[in-house]
Order: sequence, then C-alpha cells, then structure tokens
Amino acid sequence: MKIGNRKKIAIIGVGLIGGSMALQLHEKKLSSRLIGVEASKEHAEQALEYELVDEFLPLDEAIATAEIIILAIPVNKMVTLLPQVLDKVTDQVVFDLGSTKTAVIEAVKHHPKRGRYVATHPMWGTEYSGPKAAVRGAFEGKAVIICNPKESDPDALEWVEKMYTKIGMRLVQMEAKAHDLHVAYVSHISHITSFALANTVLEKEKVESAIFEIASAGFESTVRLAKSNPEMWVPIFLQNRENIIDVLTEHIDQLTRFKESIQTNDNAGLQALINDANKIKRIIK
Amino acid sequence: MKIGNRKKIAIIGVGLIGGSMALQLHEKKLSSRLIGVEASKEHAEQALEYELVDEFLPLDEAIATAEIIILAIPVNKMVTLLPQVLDKVTDQVVFDLGSTKTAVIEAVKHHPKRGRYVATHPMWGTEYSGPKAAVRGAFEGKAVIICNPKESDPDALEWVEKMYTKIGMRLVQMEAKAHDLHVAYVSHISHITSFALANTVLEKEKVESAIFEIASAGFESTVRLAKSNPEMWVPIFLQNRENIIDVLTEHIDQLTRFKESIQTNDNAGLQALINDANKIKRIIK
Repeated sequence: MKIGNRKKIAIIGVGLIGGSMALQLHEKKLSSRLIGVEASKEHAEQALEYELVDEFLPLDEAIATAEIIILAIPVNKMVTLLPQVLDKVTDQVVFDLGSTKTAVIEAVKHHPKRGRYVATHPMWGTEYSGPKAAVRGAFEGKAVIICNPKESDPDALEWVEKMYTKIGMRLVQMEAKAHDLHVAYVSHISHITSFALANTVLEKEKVESAIFEIASAGFESTVRLAKSNPEMWVPIFLQNRENIIDVLTEHIDQLTRFKESIQTNDNAGLQALINDANKIKRIIK
Repeated sequence: MKIGNRKKIAIIGVGLIGGSMALQLHEKKLSSRLIGVEASKEHAEQALEYELVDEFLPLDEAIATAEIIILAIPVNKMVTLLPQVLDKVTDQVVFDLGSTKTAVIEAVKHHPKRGRYVATHPMWGTEYSGPKAAVRGAFEGKAVIICNPKESDPDALEWVEKMYTKIGMRLVQMEAKAHDLHVAYVSHISHITSFALANTVLEKEKVESAIFEIASAGFESTVRLAKSNPEMWVPIFLQNRENIIDVLTEHIDQLTRFKESIQTNDNAGLQALINDANKIKRIIK
C-alpha cells in the first residue's frame, strides 16, 4: 500500500482527536475522501459544518468503502468496537488513537485480522472536546507511540508510520505495558492532579466567593486540564488502573513530604524537596 | 504626592519581580530615575546590562535619594528589612511586592512610620528568576491586592493605587488574613502540586529513562511551576504555613477520593468527581 496514493479514509468518532486527525490528513494530502462515522447526530452535523469530513456513513458502509479505518473513540468503547471492525475488514489498514493500549491489544490478540490493526497513540490533546474543538496542525512536532509493532502486518505498519512521519510526528515504538506505565506518569497523573486541584479550590469557593478574583496564570496552567471531559477520562483511568494507583500513591507521598516539612518548619527539608523538583528543568525547557 | 510627576524610585531586589516592575515604571513614564539595590553583584551587573535600572546605590543612599521605595525580595527577608527601611524614611512612599502579607504587616504594626508603607501583591510571576527573567508589560491586565489600606497614609495609598492603575492593573482591597488564605488556594497550592508532581515523575525516571520522550503539553503545563526557585518559595510556604496545611490536607483528601474510586472501579463516582471539577469552566475560560 503506497503512501503516495491518496486514500479513502474512514474516521470512527469525529471529536477533538478524530476531527484534528481529519484536518491533518486533508492538509497533508493523504486522503482522497474522508468518511465520518458518528454516534452523536449533533457531532456529525458540527463536523460537516466545520468541513472536517466529506460525508457521514453508517459503520458497515464506511468500513466497506474505506481503505484506511481510524478509531478515535473512548477507550472503553474501543475494546468492544475494534474486534467488530476487524470482523468486517478484508485488507484495509485499521489503527486507533486511544490513550491506553494494553486492554485494546489484548481484546484483538487472537483475531484472525489482528495483522491489519496498528496500535497508536499520538501524544496530543487539549482540555476541550467535540468536533468544534478540532485544531489544525495539532499533531505536528509531537511524539506518536506505536505499540507492539511486530503484531501488525508489515504493509499496515509501514503505511501508518509513513503517514505519521508525513504529518510531522516523531515515531516511538514501545510495548503496550511500557506505554501504559509511561503515560500514567506523563499524562494521566497530570489530569488527576488538575481535577483534584479544581475540586479543592471549588470546595473552598463555596464559602469564599472572592477567591477567583485574584487567580493568576500559574493557577490557570495547573488547573486547565480539569476542564477535560469524563466520557474520555473515566475509561482511561479505569483501564490503566494499576499503573495510575501506583503513580497516585507516590504523588500523595510526595505531597505528604511537603506537608510534613511545612508543618515542622523544616527549611532545609523544603529546600531539598524544591531543589529535587527543579531538576525538571533538564526535561522541560 | 501627584501621580503626574515622575519620581525617583528605588527598587530593593532587582530580580524577576523587581526587574519587571522597573520596566513597567519606565515604560509608563512613572520614574524620572530608577535606582537599584542588590545584594547579588551578579544580579546587579545583569540588571544594568538589561537596562532595568539606571544605577545601583547602597541601601542607605538609595533610601535618602528616592521618593518612592519598592521592596521586591523574598518574604523572609522582607520582615527584617522593611522595619529597617522605615527607620530611615521621612516622607517617602514605601511598598512591597511580596506574596504573603500577614507577617510583614505584623512586623511594622507599631512602627512610627507605618503610614508610609503600603502592602501590595501584584498577581503575576513566572517560574523563572533573576533580572534576566524580567518581562515587559508583565503586570498589565492582572489583579493587584492592596492589604489593610486603612493602615497606610492616604497620600501614600493614593500614589500606589494610581500607579498600579496607570500600569493597567485591577485593584482589589483585602485584609491581610483573607489575602493569605486566598493566595494559598489560587497560587501557593499550585506550586506545591507542581513541585510534588515533578518529584513523582523524576523518581520514576531513575528506572525508566524513556519516560520523557513522550511528555506532552498537558504534562508541561501542570509541571512548569516546578522550575520555580526555592529562595522565593520556601519562605512563602513557611510564612503561610497554617493556610497551606489546610489546603494541602484538602487536596490530599481530593486525590485520595480519586484513588479510592479508581481502586474500586467506581465508574459513577469518578464521573461525579470529574463533573464537579469541570465546574472550573465557570472561572477559567
């Protein structure tokens, strides 16, 4: 399957992620036709209004028509829908954009069409959702993780990797278990701390209504992910439960160290904790 | 003291905050001459190189020369230096830019020159420090809190409020105790969660070196405050100890609720926690 030819591409789930992918495929001239599949009538109408896809079709018709099939739906729906999609696939290439990988790969492990599927996770998102939130050029310059590449047919893997490269993404290959551990640390925990911070402050706001008059940019950047939607995030937290519990336990320990150092007026201890944290400068410029 | 006349202004501490204030005073034509006072020779040289101030003078000479004196130093140094500055003041206006207010106001409560001092906290900062980090137009459009305004002489208060208004800041008057409570919620806790998150992930990185290859914008925005410097933040955490312990206790409770819901596979409970957190949309657009 040559990358050079434009493909008929079906996107199942045209929200923030699927919609932004549609814009990239169109812009990079990778698609000859973009077919949406949407459970929400409202989202389908918005996606057409914003010209994210050319048309919407029912699932079976979209699968039969497309050469490439992309799944961009919540990860709980992924584990049930992906096997059903593979049931109907002949030689199409299928890939997903989900944030967890172990469960979905496990769900199709023994499927006769397993080879047509490539497990991917482009590392981009925002706190907004739905087709209106789709962003042009979203994925460019970011990392994309390809999981368990040896389980995919070489031609399917090649097309997906070339497509991501053409979009401008940096390819990282990883086993699903390592992926789920790493994203717990660099993505999932950030969302939980933001949600919890929002709840902490909103709880106080009930009695102190003036509290947000003075909120500054530092607060906004720490709390912005708290706007993220539960339909996407609850399934991620539950599918990646074990890793997230480990990270959360460590994070609560780290917060408790700050609390104890402050309680005991431990200047040197606090200094040491912050010096450690400052080492993040090596990573985040 | 008319706002219309440019003033000779001394800034004690020409780092991120003092340096950014110097740029605003110059740009808004509020200063006829900007005098720096710096303990660090390196910072003084950088501040001159970046043209943040016109010259550096020793503290006593700066106080004697200036009509306006601004303190922009860590809050532990503030409580000892402010009384010493007031000892040497005749009719100058003195104000500080510190992040905590109860301790510093308490430190000069019975000082014969208390009236010359205005307690202020402009709600702006970044995770960087030193004169190199100074930003043009930093304070514009932000809130500035004026604490215990009745304890300041009317002419001193008037000059400071007009100055902030001319810079483009939104004035909020508040008692020191309310200020310290509110900033614990909308500023100090954000820094602690960022520091603790950095330590959580860096701890894991020791055994999983690939972890940051895939870090995305969400992680960066939650963790960026972890680059903030300990010289500024340790004294803030210790001076605002009681409020910060309350907020941290609540925040750890909120995180524990997430942990328990995930552990028990409580879909509805997680959904409810995130729905609550989403209400932050009312406040942060």
